[in-house]
Amino acid sequence: MRVGFIGLGVMGRPMALNLLRAGHEVAVHARRAASLEPLVEAGAASAATPAELAAGSDAVITMVTGTADVEAVLLGADGVAHGARPGTVAIDMSTIDPAATRVIAAALAERDVDMLDAPVSGGPHGARDASLSIMVGGRAEVLERVRPVLDCLGTTVRHMGGHGAGQVTKACNQLLLLVTAQGVAEALVLARRAGLDAGQVREALLGGMASSSVLDFFGERMVRRDFAAGIETRLYHKDLDIVLRLAHGLGIALPAGALTMQHINGLHGQGRGRDDLSALITVVEALGAGDAAAHGN
Amino acid sequence: MRVGFIGLGVMGRPMALNLLRAGHEVAVHARRAASLEPLVEAGAASAATPAELAAGSDAVITMVTGTADVEAVLLGADGVAHGARPGTVAIDMSTIDPAATRVIAAALAERDVDMLDAPVSGGPHGARDASLSIMVGGRAEVLERVRPVLDCLGTTVRHMGGHGAGQVTKACNQLLLLVTAQGVAEALVLARRAGLDAGQVREALLGGMASSSVLDFFGERMVRRDFAAGIETRLYHKDLDIVLRLAHGLGIALPAGALTMQHINGLHGQGRGRDDLSALITVVEALGAGDAAAHGN
Repeated sequence: MRVGFIGLGVMGRPMALNLLRAGHEVAVHARRAASLEPLVEAGAASAATPAELAAGSDAVITMVTGTADVEAVLLGADGVAHGARPGTVAIDMSTIDPAATRVIAAALAERDVDMLDAPVSGGPHGARDASLSIMVGGRAEVLERVRPVLDCLGTTVRHMGGHGAGQVTKACNQLLLLVTAQGVAEALVLARRAGLDAGQVREALLGGMASSSVLDFFGERMVRRDFAAGIETRLYHKDLDIVLRLAHGLGIALPAGALTMQHINGLHGQGRGRDDLSALITVVEALGAGDAAAHGN
Repeated sequence: MRVGFIGLGVMGRPMALNLLRAGHEVAVHARRAASLEPLVEAGAASAATPAELAAGSDAVITMVTGTADVEAVLLGADGVAHGARPGTVAIDMSTIDPAATRVIAAALAERDVDMLDAPVSGGPHGARDASLSIMVGGRAEVLERVRPVLDCLGTTVRHMGGHGAGQVTKACNQLLLLVTAQGVAEALVLARRAGLDAGQVREALLGGMASSSVLDFFGERMVRRDFAAGIETRLYHKDLDIVLRLAHGLGIALPAGALTMQHINGLHGQGRGRDDLSALITVVEALGAGDAAAHGN
């Protein structure tokens, strides 16, 4: 299948490379020429605009940052909508507002372009290993047409419902991921302040009912105090804003989600939005006493 | 090894049975005669008092509810301390206050009884399957003497430090477990209120970075709305109280832990302390709008 790919960042680059490796004909577009190079070297064609990219593609994947970016590359001047032939599928794998997804899908439908929202979980590691979890909203028959493409990017590809259902699922994922990260930060601060070795406590907790992927992955970084991003905290900040706006619109309360947002707000406000989510532990630490002497051991 | 076992509840009963199956000579004591029967049928001896039990044991395990219960069976009238020979090991597998553990250990040491705090994670399922995670505080050489006993009860037995270190680790475990449960409840409420199938969302999230044992186990019960306890919420209420008192004493802040306590307080106050922790979802639901019509799918 001829696949166009827009957005070659920390997630998009390894995903586009996986499509090439799987034998798809891949063309790419990026705002910065430097982002194109590794893909072009690996055999991808490049296109000057999203419209030009779409003209030669059966499916166009977007993996950009926010709602405004998706609107621009799909519907803006020289956007995908202005080059795509009828029947082209626009697969947005970015994490954006579910309500905006529905509006974009409706605008694309007027030009006979089918849209899927297909955000992912699994991080840069999952992008590299093609082990992402892909949560899809849109028409089921459209998903079936492009499933061979998505199967090259992740281990699970799930149809969650109509337009926006993938984004709602991703919102639930980010809410739980971030609340869990807050819990991991608090548990590791408690461990260290009580005089234990936080790394040993993390390992003990991985063996019981408190075990989670967040404790495994981000907990390990918290213990090593490695705050160099994987995925930058500013992106989680954006995602949790989507979650809370969704809850606002639905009239539901997410107390732990809102509390976690305040901590991420604080981290962001300290100019640390480009740090890893593991830096959340420093916000919890700053609220309390310093390291205590080990007691009883 | 001759092992005495006190506390034959939802956790203790299957644990004592596992010791019998592994070939240990087991004697049991319980306040209620009905609790003794299945163990005596399986080959355990019974003792009228903790002191009498201790007199014939190399190690005595206590698996009771709270700090006061542990103090009573170990140090009270007819308690373990009054029957144990020098060199007997008291292994407390209950979840209690780490500071109280240190006081009890000191009192037992005066009678040449060695104490280990060895609380567990893994629930009734882990107790049955002998797959518990066991977090041990106390002297390492004492742990080595009774390790063959603990190995019959769990898959991981970790020495975390001196007296109380097992209880501190368990406190970290319960803090993270409960904050994660709050996050799972909020994520599943968001999913359902946004018109998705909460069960499908749970499955999708289990494939990504938001995955956890709590989402797997308690999330499944939340989706089925099965609130019949495994472990009763009143016990988590007790455990989180231990966590917050520990933080209080150390001068550290656990914002998500404290927030989760308020929700569990609410559940408890509704007279639902004997429900499963999965009932936490009803507290989150009660804060917001009812089910919305599915939209967009």
